[in-house]
Amino acid sequence: MDKGIMELINKIPGWENKLQYQGAFTVKPFGRMAGRPVKCVVPGKDKVLELDKVLDAVELKDGMTISFHHALRNGDLVMQKVVAAISRKGIKDLTLSASSLSLVQDALLPYFEDGTITAIDTSGARGRIGEFIQKNKLKKPAIFRTHGGRARAIESGELHIDVAFIAAPTCDKYGNINGVQGKSACGSLGYAMPDAEYAEQVVAVTDGLVSVPLEYVSIPQTQVDYIVEVESIGDPSGIATGSIRISKNPAELVISKYVAEVIKYAGLLKEGIIFQFGSGGIAISAAGFVQTEMQRTGIKAAAGIGGASGFLTEMLANGYIGTFFDPQDFDTKAIESLYFNSRHHEISASAYANPFSANPYVNLLDVAVLSATEVDINFNVNVNVLTDSYGKLIGAPGGHPDAAAGAEVTIVALPLLRGRLPMLLEKVQTVVTPGETVDVLVTDYGIAINPKRLDLYEILQKTSLPVMTVEELHQKAQKLAGVAEKTILGDRVCGLVEYRDGTIIDVVYDLP
Amino acid sequence: MDKGIMELINKIPGWENKLQYQGAFTVKPFGRMAGRPVKCVVPGKDKVLELDKVLDAVELKDGMTISFHHALRNGDLVMQKVVAAISRKGIKDLTLSASSLSLVQDALLPYFEDGTITAIDTSGARGRIGEFIQKNKLKKPAIFRTHGGRARAIESGELHIDVAFIAAPTCDKYGNINGVQGKSACGSLGYAMPDAEYAEQVVAVTDGLVSVPLEYVSIPQTQVDYIVEVESIGDPSGIATGSIRISKNPAELVISKYVAEVIKYAGLLKEGIIFQFGSGGIAISAAGFVQTEMQRTGIKAAAGIGGASGFLTEMLANGYIGTFFDPQDFDTKAIESLYFNSRHHEISASAYANPFSANPYVNLLDVAVLSATEVDINFNVNVNVLTDSYGKLIGAPGGHPDAAAGAEVTIVALPLLRGRLPMLLEKVQTVVTPGETVDVLVTDYGIAINPKRLDLYEILQKTSLPVMTVEELHQKAQKLAGVAEKTILGDRVCGLVEYRDGTIIDVVYDLP
Repeated sequence: MDKGIMELINKIPGWENKLQYQGAFTVKPFGRMAGRPVKCVVPGKDKVLELDKVLDAVELKDGMTISFHHALRNGDLVMQKVVAAISRKGIKDLTLSASSLSLVQDALLPYFEDGTITAIDTSGARGRIGEFIQKNKLKKPAIFRTHGGRARAIESGELHIDVAFIAAPTCDKYGNINGVQGKSACGSLGYAMPDAEYAEQVVAVTDGLVSVPLEYVSIPQTQVDYIVEVESIGDPSGIATGSIRISKNPAELVISKYVAEVIKYAGLLKEGIIFQFGSGGIAISAAGFVQTEMQRTGIKAAAGIGGASGFLTEMLANGYIGTFFDPQDFDTKAIESLYFNSRHHEISASAYANPFSANPYVNLLDVAVLSATEVDINFNVNVNVLTDSYGKLIGAPGGHPDAAAGAEVTIVALPLLRGRLPMLLEKVQTVVTPGETVDVLVTDYGIAINPKRLDLYEILQKTSLPVMTVEELHQKAQKLAGVAEKTILGDRVCGLVEYRDGTIIDVVYDLP
Repeated sequence: MDKGIMELINKIPGWENKLQYQGAFTVKPFGRMAGRPVKCVVPGKDKVLELDKVLDAVELKDGMTISFHHALRNGDLVMQKVVAAISRKGIKDLTLSASSLSLVQDALLPYFEDGTITAIDTSGARGRIGEFIQKNKLKKPAIFRTHGGRARAIESGELHIDVAFIAAPTCDKYGNINGVQGKSACGSLGYAMPDAEYAEQVVAVTDGLVSVPLEYVSIPQTQVDYIVEVESIGDPSGIATGSIRISKNPAELVISKYVAEVIKYAGLLKEGIIFQFGSGGIAISAAGFVQTEMQRTGIKAAAGIGGASGFLTEMLANGYIGTFFDPQDFDTKAIESLYFNSRHHEISASAYANPFSANPYVNLLDVAVLSATEVDINFNVNVNVLTDSYGKLIGAPGGHPDAAAGAEVTIVALPLLRGRLPMLLEKVQTVVTPGETVDVLVTDYGIAINPKRLDLYEILQKTSLPVMTVEELHQKAQKLAGVAEKTILGDRVCGLVEYRDGTIIDVVYDLP
């Protein structure tokens, strides 16, 4: 990140005290968390109101911050319904805080164009909202946070939410919510929990209103002020796939096998291991190889942590994993597991990954297997993915920097090339996960170990694995694909990439 | 409460702004909740320390406030172990905040005598600690809070806890705690949850330390700073009885039958009813009669709320109750139900009863059946019980005022006489639950309905039930037992009875 950028950032109102990234565990918190709002609902009060009436009741005004969760993913209809109603009321200049923004949120574009939304605080952006950001059309740069960092920002008061609109697959008339029942079931509501706790006003938006208290409560009635009933909160086909399965791509299988062997040879595959496997094909396939090894040796994992997919919850059901701590679900099998398996626990984004707590669950990880779009010779990672190699916003940091910081061994797995492009560069377009928190890079053409992990290098270089220096692996990529062309970007900052501790680790430039 | 007492109370440092009780729903909250402490534990930190070392680590100092929960009831060994260690260090002038104090805490007396503890903040006191309070030997009056009121006080910052010591039947090395596993299982840890959330430092004290992440988490690792392993946190025989069963006492059965008939004739026994039955013999027997009626009619309850005993959890298991929201467990059957029945939910004292939330679970109650020591002609209740008829501290407000305020219909059931003493008086010794929140008094000699519930009176006086005015019932008590002798008490205030909203509803006088 160029010198001088922090000075520019510090001139933006509200960001006067933002610091530059100083190391994964350098910045310590001070002061206290924000005081949560005090509420007072007397017996017999009816919380159910129509959306328009709720917007009046919460006294939504120009300049406020509204929030949403992304657990309905590409099936979400709540953001567009709510923002459309707000736009009709002529309210302007809102900050949109979303735990992430999927492609379906392209539908929000008109409300960006008409000035209803003029600032964004999110874990990611893509599609037309990404383009809007990179055309520099927001009033100030978008801020991209990790899942743990967003929880930290909410709890610290840095991200003050005026009204949280919570898509609720099931909601009782008292305000209890869960994500495991109903036609729009999306699983864990972990990413909505900090919003529900800290927002001034909390509105449940549901297509599954029931009159009896829920059997399963994710967000309790004590936090929910109003309930809005709508016909549909989401399109099931966009919410969750049937089941994420093991990859059949041969190159990916090679990488997965290497990952599993790194875990095994590094001595991590011992009784009581705690792991996180991302939701991508490579990570799930690596989990498959690990499961085979567990079958062979009788070793069991004590816990799985992070987003859950059916392959992992089947391992849980079959006893390969003892317990699972889950902030989000990727497929219907995982959602069912959360509902029915008592060893499968829903946890908030804060419990999962907020560094400023008396230890987030990511801190328990022996190993995290994570994906990447591109990496560099300093082991910095551009995650799956904030910007592509062309600098275009196409994704989200998500929990990547959180898991990488928490895990004893972080393995980043990716193909060395994608199409004709090298994925290991001298310098990634956007640093999302700092290299100091990445221990091993696994590609189909070789494995590089962070020099700070001499211990791992000494063990792994004695094996049959294709261990080499990161420079050697970089040269290999260059030989195969040529030197990567320098992307031509604008010189104006349109987004800040915030590390989980609140410091700025990088910026996103506009596209001219 | 005599005029002039509030002036005296307002002269005590910290209580300058205390208000007198103004009505069950009159006082509204303002401002924000207290900011919770920010913590920061990095990966790999070991939380397990010896008790003496923890007292150094948390920097416990003279004048601080320490807290404990009472879920181990009369089997608790944690308070005495911790306070003894504190006393050995010579730390003085602590405020002891306990969610309640059972008779076993007589063992703390030496630490009151030696000045280790000089102030008390609790839901109740009895035995030798009660005597100590009533001998006016504390530095300031004890403060007695309801379960919901204690949560409110913690969340508002009025009760600031420096160090919470949490008796933990099971605790993993990361700090996750539950009360359902382990040799000292006590069930729901609902009364410890506000302490865990808000205390500056949280110490788990456990005799069930395990090395793998728990399958069932009541209080998460994100809130726990230190773990102390001890040989035993409690005597199982004092923690929970085998099972609380239906009364066999004929007088109690008469009362229970009347209670069930009031519920039935008042039209409350309809599909989807939500109820709370206290843990006393009368309430459980009334639940038994209600269950029989449910069997006959096929009606099911949507939810049970409040302390759980085996009789109620069996109703849950058998489908008579849909779901159960549980801040504490009274017997081993209920503890097992909490562990194994997915429709049985652990909730915090705040979720259960804090009036300053977007509705506590008590607000859902159609009917609450509660016990009493004594009641008066204004329907005020001296609960089971803060002071006995002689003005001696023998119990705790507990959740009585909370459930009474929350329920649509509150039924207080008690024998009209105990021994030779009338239990319906012109004025109760100590008001704990205000008469405006009590709808029906049920005794073995007759039933009186609060005049503000003309609707109930009109229905019930048409039935075969012995409905009469409260004055008639009072006269009956006087005829049977004679006029109650006026208790001779001192004139110094040794305790404040705080209503759930933070106002002072009554005081406790010393015993000369």
